[in-house]
Amino acid sequence: VYVAWADGVLTTSERARIHERLGRTEWLNEDARSLLQEWLDPSAPPSPSSLQALRGRILSLGPEAAGETRRSLVALGIDLARAGGSRDGPWQDAAALEALNELEAALGVVGHEAARDLLSESAAVGEVSAAAPGGPSVAALREYLDRPHGELRREVLELLGDPRFRFPHDLDAGTYRRRVVEALHVLAARGWGALAHPTAHGGGGDPVRAIAVFETLAFGDHSLLVKYGVQFGLFGGSIAQLGSERHHARYLPAVGHLELPGCYAMTETAHGSNVRELETEARYDPGADAFVIRTPHPRARKDFIGGAAEDARLATVFAQLEVDGERHGVHAFLVPLRDDSGAPLPGVHLEDCGLKEGLNGVDNGRIAFDDVRVPRENLLDRFGRVDEEGRYSSPIPSPGRRFFTMLATLVAGRISVAAASVSAAKTGLTIAVRHAVARRQFGPAGGPEVPLLHYLAHQRLLLPRLATTCALHFAVRDLATLYGETAGHRTDPARTVEVEARAAALKAWGSEHCVATLQACREACGGQGYLAANRFGRLMADTDVFTTFEGANAVLLQLVAKALLSEYREEMGDLKLWDVVRYVADRAQTRIAELNPVVTRRTDEEHLRDPDFQAAAFRYREERLVSSAARRLKSLIDDGADSFEAMNVCQDHLLALGRAHAERLTVEAFHGAAAHAPDVALSETLRSLSDLHALSRLEADRGWFLEAGYFEAPKARAVRAVVNGLCGEVSESALALVDAFGIPDDVLEAPVATGSAE
Amino acid sequence: VYVAWADGVLTTSERARIHERLGRTEWLNEDARSLLQEWLDPSAPPSPSSLQALRGRILSLGPEAAGETRRSLVALGIDLARAGGSRDGPWQDAAALEALNELEAALGVVGHEAARDLLSESAAVGEVSAAAPGGPSVAALREYLDRPHGELRREVLELLGDPRFRFPHDLDAGTYRRRVVEALHVLAARGWGALAHPTAHGGGGDPVRAIAVFETLAFGDHSLLVKYGVQFGLFGGSIAQLGSERHHARYLPAVGHLELPGCYAMTETAHGSNVRELETEARYDPGADAFVIRTPHPRARKDFIGGAAEDARLATVFAQLEVDGERHGVHAFLVPLRDDSGAPLPGVHLEDCGLKEGLNGVDNGRIAFDDVRVPRENLLDRFGRVDEEGRYSSPIPSPGRRFFTMLATLVAGRISVAAASVSAAKTGLTIAVRHAVARRQFGPAGGPEVPLLHYLAHQRLLLPRLATTCALHFAVRDLATLYGETAGHRTDPARTVEVEARAAALKAWGSEHCVATLQACREACGGQGYLAANRFGRLMADTDVFTTFEGANAVLLQLVAKALLSEYREEMGDLKLWDVVRYVADRAQTRIAELNPVVTRRTDEEHLRDPDFQAAAFRYREERLVSSAARRLKSLIDDGADSFEAMNVCQDHLLALGRAHAERLTVEAFHGAAAHAPDVALSETLRSLSDLHALSRLEADRGWFLEAGYFEAPKARAVRAVVNGLCGEVSESALALVDAFGIPDDVLEAPVATGSAE
Repeated sequence: VYVAWADGVLTTSERARIHERLGRTEWLNEDARSLLQEWLDPSAPPSPSSLQALRGRILSLGPEAAGETRRSLVALGIDLARAGGSRDGPWQDAAALEALNELEAALGVVGHEAARDLLSESAAVGEVSAAAPGGPSVAALREYLDRPHGELRREVLELLGDPRFRFPHDLDAGTYRRRVVEALHVLAARGWGALAHPTAHGGGGDPVRAIAVFETLAFGDHSLLVKYGVQFGLFGGSIAQLGSERHHARYLPAVGHLELPGCYAMTETAHGSNVRELETEARYDPGADAFVIRTPHPRARKDFIGGAAEDARLATVFAQLEVDGERHGVHAFLVPLRDDSGAPLPGVHLEDCGLKEGLNGVDNGRIAFDDVRVPRENLLDRFGRVDEEGRYSSPIPSPGRRFFTMLATLVAGRISVAAASVSAAKTGLTIAVRHAVARRQFGPAGGPEVPLLHYLAHQRLLLPRLATTCALHFAVRDLATLYGETAGHRTDPARTVEVEARAAALKAWGSEHCVATLQACREACGGQGYLAANRFGRLMADTDVFTTFEGANAVLLQLVAKALLSEYREEMGDLKLWDVVRYVADRAQTRIAELNPVVTRRTDEEHLRDPDFQAAAFRYREERLVSSAARRLKSLIDDGADSFEAMNVCQDHLLALGRAHAERLTVEAFHGAAAHAPDVALSETLRSLSDLHALSRLEADRGWFLEAGYFEAPKARAVRAVVNGLCGEVSESALALVDAFGIPDDVLEAPVATGSAE
Repeated sequence: VYVAWADGVLTTSERARIHERLGRTEWLNEDARSLLQEWLDPSAPPSPSSLQALRGRILSLGPEAAGETRRSLVALGIDLARAGGSRDGPWQDAAALEALNELEAALGVVGHEAARDLLSESAAVGEVSAAAPGGPSVAALREYLDRPHGELRREVLELLGDPRFRFPHDLDAGTYRRRVVEALHVLAARGWGALAHPTAHGGGGDPVRAIAVFETLAFGDHSLLVKYGVQFGLFGGSIAQLGSERHHARYLPAVGHLELPGCYAMTETAHGSNVRELETEARYDPGADAFVIRTPHPRARKDFIGGAAEDARLATVFAQLEVDGERHGVHAFLVPLRDDSGAPLPGVHLEDCGLKEGLNGVDNGRIAFDDVRVPRENLLDRFGRVDEEGRYSSPIPSPGRRFFTMLATLVAGRISVAAASVSAAKTGLTIAVRHAVARRQFGPAGGPEVPLLHYLAHQRLLLPRLATTCALHFAVRDLATLYGETAGHRTDPARTVEVEARAAALKAWGSEHCVATLQACREACGGQGYLAANRFGRLMADTDVFTTFEGANAVLLQLVAKALLSEYREEMGDLKLWDVVRYVADRAQTRIAELNPVVTRRTDEEHLRDPDFQAAAFRYREERLVSSAARRLKSLIDDGADSFEAMNVCQDHLLALGRAHAERLTVEAFHGAAAHAPDVALSETLRSLSDLHALSRLEADRGWFLEAGYFEAPKARAVRAVVNGLCGEVSESALALVDAFGIPDDVLEAPVATGSAE
């Protein structure tokens, strides 16, 4: 009776079933029968107190109600009767017992749970432990993740724990900016400003170390991160890569030590992605042997330039070079902005961009030039120079190719943003996973609440993203190494294009992943995640622009697609697309392997977790997207379409291709990292994560694989089942994994994750 | 030659092809031949100036190079030669012409584009216009969208344009909060605080009007929005819905006029989603005829309570009622927090939650009670009372059902959050669409740059989200109307459960859509979108918590799934799940219609755009997810699983079911709205949008439809093609559509969208 009423109202059908049972229950006497009828009268439900009293009697059985009793309500009822003094009774009769059991079924309850609920007992629910037996060693995993430059990374992390590197959430923008600059000086004093600059002028000559510092700084404050990137990477990098020896000698030491704060003035209000059409003018005046820098109209001003609003003394300004009436395309010029007191120089108009969504410790500004003259040597002239007689020359005759060569200075920046995206995702996941292990909510009937990470939905929200973060970690690390091998050397041009394409792909996929992961982690922390102290607010606002700066993701993914369509041939305009598309389209007919029905149908876990199957699936998708894009473009152009419109008609296809490339790189990098792990336990942990990564990405795009016939339906279902299983598997080691990211508590800060929450 | 070099380096294969052509070109004399060889020497590329000079000669043809000339490079070359004085020449020979044409092809260029590029001519690229001929009337569309209560909405919008309702981005939290309270007083003075309160006590008696005000306020500042919701919806609503007549009389007039600021203290630090297990205690003390409110331990304090940090004088506190040693579950009590001077009352410990990701104009706080006594009449006793003799009674004997009935007060809040999500998405889309029409970047060779909205990728980023926003608009509006019909009346309990399930579904789907849409819109506005002035920063930070408060989305979607599995039977515990699952699983075998191969294969646009096909697809998915979930649960429980674990194993399945339900409701609501539009032009516009909505959602989940066999591959491809076509179609009217959302410039504010950008 308690169960019938306690669980809600007694429905008509339930009453009918009970009445029917009662009618057939011969061993009940009339009194008992009418008492029960009374209890079950829908128009006069029992009072809450009488229900409570009933529950009290049940509970008073206490510990005696253990063991057997839990089996069902019927057993519980008999115990109850016995406790009431009735040693013997009709329920000892087998028919009566069966009738009671039927009654229990009629109430539509699962007996053992109902009994347990009454007795407030708990079901055995798995706990999530920090150190699962046989799980990975945090130290070994961390050491592997930290390669190369593990020591440098630890030095940076140690510094980030310093109070000078922590910026309260309620700082006003002015104070915030000032404190960021102070911290930037500390980094410069450690020699980390010149890591990538040539050794001949006091630099470290190692761009990969600079990327490692940037990646690690991304665990801390992102305004500092961006100021570091602007001053040493973009401003310093433009001088190092676009300037000559004499520029290096004159400027780099001061830049690296932050004695000469500068900025990188490329973007204009009206031209962000389409940099080739920048409108700032740099006309050579032979009489004065100087360039005249001019902003032709307000929307041609430099905009969103980090450092321009307050700090920068000197700017690398990208402008259209004009010599003797001839235009030679975009070139970079060093243009002084402020005098030593910080006052703007004549003809330089500076403006503050004002408050932003995030990164408010960075002084973004606007610059307009009113016929500002700079001496001839201020042209960064590695790829184009004007001699004493006012003649322009360049080692690269094509203006288009020259332009793209100059843009290659952005590659290190893109790799750095990809690396920082991975770090930010790690911060979010560390907070969310620790919260998911500590926080309990709901649970089985009568049992204690269970940790959030026990729930499949919560695992699915966090763990595939954890796996993808690790995969991107290795993909970006591989790319940085490759970049280090090619940067500054005259290598195979195709290799250079490949590095550029990879950087574009991983910057786009990394930043997109970062934004989505932080959002998921914030939601996974519920209201706690919404408190500023727990980091997500600022972290999300700061990283949001990662999808936009250093190349908008949609533009970068198309760049990747074009590089793939041209098979990493050197940079080319759309004009040659026709040639390439024809070539790829012709070859495509024979290139794509026939689908193997045995493979499309195999659903066993061993097959799905085989790296060869996974790699083949991602390669197949990429190759098929390349060849089908080529065929579509060819047929559009054959039908008379303009190449611009042909590209536009296929734009979603090209973006899908760019993403497919990024994912293929990432899957391969993780396979490699798991295979080369220094010990078996580590390799196994990484294999589980790598499988979760690859299969969850296949699951996410199962529509494509089904449509292409690469999967049949049972295979898609099997992938989902294995992803669910892997989520459970990885949940056991999730805490160890985020610990291995190695973010110290005083850098992580978030009270909800560091146990310092009140 | 210019084209060969200008486009980049001359590749070896290109040189080889040119050389081969030259070798076969008999009409060239030796001089010309060697000159060409010189120009084509890879080791000595032409100087930039000589290339420029070549271009100059070509351009000097000027306007003569019109018409015919544009056809190809060959024609251009001939014109060039003629201009150079050579009236006659070997090129008049047909064979020579053919050879030149072959040469052009060998260079791999599309002649007419290369010629146009040289001449800086533009291709004809479609422009996006504000008022496409034959497009929808903004006024008619707006009037339709504004129904019902269009006049009330306009009044709210007019007020929002008032400077008192605009809050600069750099306000400190203290000033921000103060100004929000001042604005809240203005709303109360307009009578909008009491719209939903009973007419007997000065209220408007119309909850749907209150939702309309909330929905419209969401175009403005969200801190004000949340304060409005907390004071009048949650605090006032709890008194109206959980209290008796005497509570209404005593409190509601002062609440509605904001003379009595209050708060809604449900959530505790350790219990957010699992409200039933709240730990705050309310023990009845018969001697004092009072309740003793107590926080048993620090994590049982009330947390994240809007209004608690500064403003609230009185709180609706949810606590476990204990009378005479018996626990009766969660009940609501009115507990005074502060005296008239604002000082905390004895035993009440108040704390500020501090800075949050967003909504910093709301004073969220924490409350702990140290044996605070409130008189017996402070129990809001509609669903449970304690009489003079200290006896507890309730019209609902089951504690579980009583609890869920009290929670039903949250339904209006959930509908309101869904409505506000739609408004916030509209704000983001208005900004992003206007920017996409005004902003130009890139374009065809030699042509002007084209608007962002011309690009397929940009259309795909914004327009399906625009369509979904409109669909949700109608779905939420329908639900509010239905709620108005059922609220406060003793209607069919199944109807009540249905409204609750719909509210949960649309709150979850609406808030998720809002977060994703604002992110997409921010990215679509690039760096401009990152400026605080352009609204996204605060809008994203403020709405992020929509996915969490008033019920975390994952919890709500499971509530929807359970309601569907139980076919809207009244609220029940998991204990009865067994009964329901068995019923649904048994019936499911016969319920799902056989797939019709003609339908699964049809790919024509007429079929795909048929509302009957669309509705059937969404219904099919939902029904199949219900029946398969029931079968899985039944088999898990038959195999001995605990019902809690069975639900957890299927949790991703249940979330998918909840989402499928939300989408089905939304698709049906949009179909209805399009069908009932007052005129044909409007109906056609809405039909296009509705098709884009339905088909883009089918495309997004094509993996499911392919896996289920409901689509075959050609159909999935056809859906994608129609979505692309609809994007182009809708791009023509996108500007009119966002104008019809009716957000005045002084409410929209964003300079990038209102034309006030510098």
